Amino acid sequence: MNDYTQILVDKADGIATITLNRPEKMNAYTRIMGEEIMAAMDDIDVDDSVGAVIFTGSGDRAFCAGADLTPEGGGHVFSDPSEVEDLSDPKVRDGGGLLTLRLFESKKPLISACNGVAVGVGATMQLAMDIRLASENARYGFVFARRGIVPEACSSWFLPKLVGISQALEWCYTGRIFDAEEARNGGLIKDIYSLSELMDAARGLAREIADNTSAVSVAMTRAMMWRLPSGSHPMEAHKIDSRAIYRLSRGADAKEGIASFLEKRAPQYPGKVSEDMPDFYPWWDAAEYR
Amino acid sequence: MNDYTQILVDKADGIATITLNRPEKMNAYTRIMGEEIMAAMDDIDVDDSVGAVIFTGSGDRAFCAGADLTPEGGGHVFSDPSEVEDLSDPKVRDGGGLLTLRLFESKKPLISACNGVAVGVGATMQLAMDIRLASENARYGFVFARRGIVPEACSSWFLPKLVGISQALEWCYTGRIFDAEEARNGGLIKDIYSLSELMDAARGLAREIADNTSAVSVAMTRAMMWRLPSGSHPMEAHKIDSRAIYRLSRGADAKEGIASFLEKRAPQYPGKVSEDMPDFYPWWDAAEYR
Amino acid sequence: MNDYTQILVDKADGIATITLNRPEKMNAYTRIMGEEIMAAMDDIDVDDSVGAVIFTGSGDRAFCAGADLTPEGGGHVFSDPSEVEDLSDPKVRDGGGLLTLRLFESKKPLISACNGVAVGVGATMQLAMDIRLASENARYGFVFARRGIVPEACSSWFLPKLVGISQALEWCYTGRIFDAEEARNGGLIKDIYSLSELMDAARGLAREIADNTSAVSVAMTRAMMWRLPSGSHPMEAHKIDSRAIYRLSRGADAKEGIASFLEKRAPQYPGKVSEDMPDFYPWWDAAEYR
Repeated sequence: MNDYTQILVDKADGIATITLNRPEKMNAYTRIMGEEIMAAMDDIDVDDSVGAVIFTGSGDRAFCAGADLTPEGGGHVFSDPSEVEDLSDPKVRDGGGLLTLRLFESKKPLISACNGVAVGVGATMQLAMDIRLASENARYGFVFARRGIVPEACSSWFLPKLVGISQALEWCYTGRIFDAEEARNGGLIKDIYSLSELMDAARGLAREIADNTSAVSVAMTRAMMWRLPSGSHPMEAHKIDSRAIYRLSRGADAKEGIASFLEKRAPQYPGKVSEDMPDFYPWWDAAEYR
Repeated sequence: MNDYTQILVDKADGIATITLNRPEKMNAYTRIMGEEIMAAMDDIDVDDSVGAVIFTGSGDRAFCAGADLTPEGGGHVFSDPSEVEDLSDPKVRDGGGLLTLRLFESKKPLISACNGVAVGVGATMQLAMDIRLASENARYGFVFARRGIVPEACSSWFLPKLVGISQALEWCYTGRIFDAEEARNGGLIKDIYSLSELMDAARGLAREIADNTSAVSVAMTRAMMWRLPSGSHPMEAHKIDSRAIYRLSRGADAKEGIASFLEKRAPQYPGKVSEDMPDFYPWWDAAEYR
Repeated sequence: MNDYTQILVDKADGIATITLNRPEKMNAYTRIMGEEIMAAMDDIDVDDSVGAVIFTGSGDRAFCAGADLTPEGGGHVFSDPSEVEDLSDPKVRDGGGLLTLRLFESKKPLISACNGVAVGVGATMQLAMDIRLASENARYGFVFARRGIVPEACSSWFLPKLVGISQALEWCYTGRIFDAEEARNGGLIKDIYSLSELMDAARGLAREIADNTSAVSVAMTRAMMWRLPSGSHPMEAHKIDSRAIYRLSRGADAKEGIASFLEKRAPQYPGKVSEDMPDFYPWWDAAEYR
């Protein structure tokens, strides 16, 4: 599927860039946009040419101004007018959550380049990305309590992990719009750039990953870090570590990693995420989220 | 119950203020004070006129100087001289924990306005509040290891969530008294004000919540954020999100939230926490903590 | 066991200092070094003269430059060439994890004084310590993805707890070497000192703990804080708190803590970790990690 209508997908030099592309609507989120992002992720996860993914918005005003509530946007994307409330029924599933659950499954690093307004699901979809960068004109808002609803897209799981419970509550209780400076001080984003430098900064970070590291190592690291934060003892982590180190240290990427290090040259890892993940990956029961 | 003897409870303009009121004892904590705070919380949770709660101490010296260990304070509040050690026996239950477990159940946002010394349970009770502000003269101490006991009031659960495990350990290992600046740098408090400005700042934050947001949304957000931080997968959050969005997006507060937004006017949410929480709330088995 | 060949262990004035001691190899980690650290920890945990432990590296260049991959280092320490992959087989267990799991069990506070390069397991072993200090010349690197392997030593459990998931991912995705300033800004270390002042700073912190607090209280606090961070409700913490407060508040250290406080003198706690831990300690099933 490449006939995207509400996003642009560019792949170049090992980096995929997904651009939310409804600039006349401040890239407001629709059910179609969500489905297109998920389709693009399905494609990227099996494309070994892609080492990292950047998300941004079209134009210079908005990353994504939240859910498009107009009929043109497909109606209220959060739910369907059906009276049936059955979580096995996709009509009652939170659309933002379907998206962040898909991002959670990603095998590639996800970098947000937030180029303007990011409100509602425009803010919460970024929580499932790994590293968030922003331009000076970025504005965030977890505005749900001002709309009579609640934070969605699994943000009760993601947001306190990123910024702590107190900051998460303050932003969600007040529902206020805040700027990039407050976002950085609160721990939501890593750094702020001028709008003209933002994409270069995001590409520089993506390059640093893609040029220097094993894609299999990165995919394993992503799963290990996101999936093992809980529990009152590190033993589960040790079990995964032991299996992963045992396997990967015998692999071709480890040989190349050590050889390139000793020879002081750029590495060329042969491993592919599509073929060379250790056979115990995934080590979890895949949650049925679609 | 309004005949409080060790606290003051004021309700005005949608904000309840609970003042620990034993200024001649630096507001030292007693079993009675704990019971009165819990009674006040029971009252506030069912009072739809209250949109947010502020905690502070009486006088200009102390928020709460810890447990009152004198006979006048009711003896050692942490425990009873009984030899029976049975956790179903309330005499052996940590008194600070009974209080923080009650605060944890709150349906209203809790803001601490720490106006001076906050030591022992005076510090740990604030950990169960959502947002902590302090005056310049505030002093904190997790002094338990200097008294031959351990951090109480569930602070092993709360404190690392707020400030990280390393900062939590350092403060508890040394047991030292530290000032507001160190508290802010360590992530314990959001901001520092002069003593004369502290209550205005706390009220301003409470107002921002009460004036702009749906009380039902805020109560739901509080439960979702505090209760879903754990687990190695966001799916549990998605299930709650989906049910909550499905219900609330059809409700009167959502209509008013969107209408007031489009009409650029202040919202008047009709929803009441006492009556309009979605019927799956609470979605957890209430722990028996009393 | 005192015949250490790759570490130095010094005990003085209530502080044990463990120095990684292969300066000609930048203190590169070997299986023997790991076993010696574990043996030293076994000794320190039952030695009531030790109130806190400091880890540092020999020389002025390195804390530990990672795993020694040369034959002299004992071969690849992460794994054995055996083809058997059975986690009950110690040959397939991650060596760094065996060490951090042992540090996790410590009854004494662990302070890192990072005096130079700390790469690979030289960085990850410090994650299981309680408080990290560094000299200006310290350099860190979670370089695993640049070697075709993955973060080990349970760092997927430890690192996000210390620095948050985004910072953890960025450092592990890029595998880059970063300096003390970035380590402090990212939350990995508490403070930076000149190399000549580093050990005095670490000893000062160790002294503050050892001189002022009950060793039993500190050992209990360590277990409570590290082992109870998870779960979606504070009740488990309350149960441990209640038992601990009930027992310890009747003990000799609590009497001395209050007496020394009232008499405004330095305390002399009689309690010993080797004999006076409450009888419900440990309250967990010990994981078999060796």
